[in-house]
Amino acid sequence: MIKINDNFLNLQEGYLFSIVNKKIKDFEDQHPNKKVIKLGIGDVTLPLCKNVVEEMKKACDEMGDINKFKGYGPEQGYEFLRNKIVEWDYKSRGIELDVNEIFISDGAKCDVSNILDLFDTNNKVAIQDPVYPVYLDSNVIGGRSGNYNKGNDKYNNIIYMPSIEENEFVPDLPKEVPDIIYLCSPNNPTGTALKYEELKKWVDYAKENKSIIFYDSAYEAFITQKDIPHSIYEVDGAKEVAIEFRSFSKTAGFTGVRCAYTVIPKELIGYSKKGEKVLINKLWGRRQSTKFNGVSYITQRGAAAVYTEEGYKQIKRNIAFYMENAKTIRERFIEKGYKVYGGINAPYIWLKLPEGKSSWQFFDELLEEEGIAGTPGVGFGPSGEGYFRLSAFGIK
Amino acid sequence: MIKINDNFLNLQEGYLFSIVNKKIKDFEDQHPNKKVIKLGIGDVTLPLCKNVVEEMKKACDEMGDINKFKGYGPEQGYEFLRNKIVEWDYKSRGIELDVNEIFISDGAKCDVSNILDLFDTNNKVAIQDPVYPVYLDSNVIGGRSGNYNKGNDKYNNIIYMPSIEENEFVPDLPKEVPDIIYLCSPNNPTGTALKYEELKKWVDYAKENKSIIFYDSAYEAFITQKDIPHSIYEVDGAKEVAIEFRSFSKTAGFTGVRCAYTVIPKELIGYSKKGEKVLINKLWGRRQSTKFNGVSYITQRGAAAVYTEEGYKQIKRNIAFYMENAKTIRERFIEKGYKVYGGINAPYIWLKLPEGKSSWQFFDELLEEEGIAGTPGVGFGPSGEGYFRLSAFGIK
Repeated sequence: MIKINDNFLNLQEGYLFSIVNKKIKDFEDQHPNKKVIKLGIGDVTLPLCKNVVEEMKKACDEMGDINKFKGYGPEQGYEFLRNKIVEWDYKSRGIELDVNEIFISDGAKCDVSNILDLFDTNNKVAIQDPVYPVYLDSNVIGGRSGNYNKGNDKYNNIIYMPSIEENEFVPDLPKEVPDIIYLCSPNNPTGTALKYEELKKWVDYAKENKSIIFYDSAYEAFITQKDIPHSIYEVDGAKEVAIEFRSFSKTAGFTGVRCAYTVIPKELIGYSKKGEKVLINKLWGRRQSTKFNGVSYITQRGAAAVYTEEGYKQIKRNIAFYMENAKTIRERFIEKGYKVYGGINAPYIWLKLPEGKSSWQFFDELLEEEGIAGTPGVGFGPSGEGYFRLSAFGIK
Repeated sequence: MIKINDNFLNLQEGYLFSIVNKKIKDFEDQHPNKKVIKLGIGDVTLPLCKNVVEEMKKACDEMGDINKFKGYGPEQGYEFLRNKIVEWDYKSRGIELDVNEIFISDGAKCDVSNILDLFDTNNKVAIQDPVYPVYLDSNVIGGRSGNYNKGNDKYNNIIYMPSIEENEFVPDLPKEVPDIIYLCSPNNPTGTALKYEELKKWVDYAKENKSIIFYDSAYEAFITQKDIPHSIYEVDGAKEVAIEFRSFSKTAGFTGVRCAYTVIPKELIGYSKKGEKVLINKLWGRRQSTKFNGVSYITQRGAAAVYTEEGYKQIKRNIAFYMENAKTIRERFIEKGYKVYGGINAPYIWLKLPEGKSSWQFFDELLEEEGIAGTPGVGFGPSGEGYFRLSAFGIK
């Protein structure tokens, strides 16, 4: 008899965005003349850069030419793209990586959840709270969460690390030592970013405890302040403890094109049950060549076009546009007397709501009074209650 | 301390293709004037159809246009493509499917291995022997294989179902009842396909035992004989027991573009530990929306272009070309006195080697004497020993 993975029954329904969408629709039906300003969206709105489009079209033509056609590519991605990443994203910041430490994929969401295939179910997991929900949900499916506790909206085996106003959105080192630590910086949803010293604290902690850090820096391109690291590998010793996830989605508008990459340094090791050291880089290579078949050649050509003088200029212009939106939103809510976080090194603005106001209450009021739709903070974790996310992508 | 998934250590190294490539390279170095005819390749060689290229280029242009740009698409795939699949691939054969039973992905390899996320580790797995190695390897990683036994080249907990000359490459119903049954038809590597009655036997068996069938029909477009089912859903009741995997890879030359789809009928159920019935369609939807972000809009537009009068004509022409190659290869080896299977409903020709000749011995001889490189049958499972695969894709 076919038995399902019972962990799926332990997932909480993702009602957040369906409720948000229903509320917006109801509002629009009642106010047919008002246009809702949608700042709930976590998706880019500006089109692809000209350079990227032109390169992809050339690649399409090649695929139609019997002498240039390309079938299966390397599961790890084409070297022409991996070389560019090594050069432009890392070497330019003084970080030396080998091209075989870069793995191209069709999305950071896939990588950050598929990476769990490599690790034992018994690892203890710590996540920031609030944070991008995929970290939690993929661990629920993978059987690492323990049961859901309705009373506190938490899973019993997950270590929640509050990232809130009181600790300036920098999680404290947890009392119980986790084996897997998710850090998202710049953070979705709080829009805040970890400074060098804060990141160093985590790297040292992971080294001391033989933990691994999953470092999600999908929003690094939005960093504007000089003292914020773009990569965890800017911290000495991080190669021994951290995997870094990056994406072209927000950086280059690839949400609908699908390209990302994951860095797994050769120094990074895990332990077998017998205590043998195992190279994580090699495991991921084996996982990907067994369960994945690489990213579209056309897509990879498009991604490589970002790493040209003209392409880079074009994506920087789009990012600057989004960050100008962020500034406008920030200032508007500061004027109105709110405490406002984020929006400086990330495209997300995180409002602290007045004492006692729930994030859903605020959602309703903001929609009703100003025709603005955002995202209730509680949708990103229990410590998101009392906060509200506004996205800089929604205005174009 | 970070603990790895020890099942990875249980994987046997995939030496096959690296040894094949090394032997070819050595031969080429020794015979610089001889061109090796590479019939080992499982990858297409003809370029994409004109229609597909043109549609993808249009889609690239849209992605560069602020008014037409598309960000995140539906995780399940765009309806424009799913509707075409329902209409052209199923309704045309009398099979009624709902558009929500189709899930677009970036590859059948991904789907056929990721699908295991939905099922408990304790399910008993049966695979054909020989067969596409991903079924086995993904189950080793997932912890369903038991230990590897060097003596018989088998994993202890896997049910191997020999598909050999003696049973006309139709596996017998296994004595021990499996929960998960992989059927690949037309088969890679044997090139043989299951007939209606044979498939019905398996559907009835699965219904009787509440087993599930993973039906891989990635090569269905190569079927030329009228009595061979293209879909398992041609068999009554199959919707209650089978998931069907299909791909644009071999059908439309998408190995480098990456698009496939999986059909999960709403009738298909699994059981929780408590014995509750759970809809597999809903579980997969949840899995994909948690761990996947859909396929490139450009790719999906290209795939949809296959389902036009002109597109269909173009891909049929390519398939006919490959099948003409298959015929040539078949006839050549029949003339030489070999027993030859496959090559009629699949792009693979499967040679039965003379008694006592190993598939590696034959590899060496064929390369040395005729400059032809194929694939030793033993690379697809222990029952592949004494056989040899030749691919019809290698000549263009």
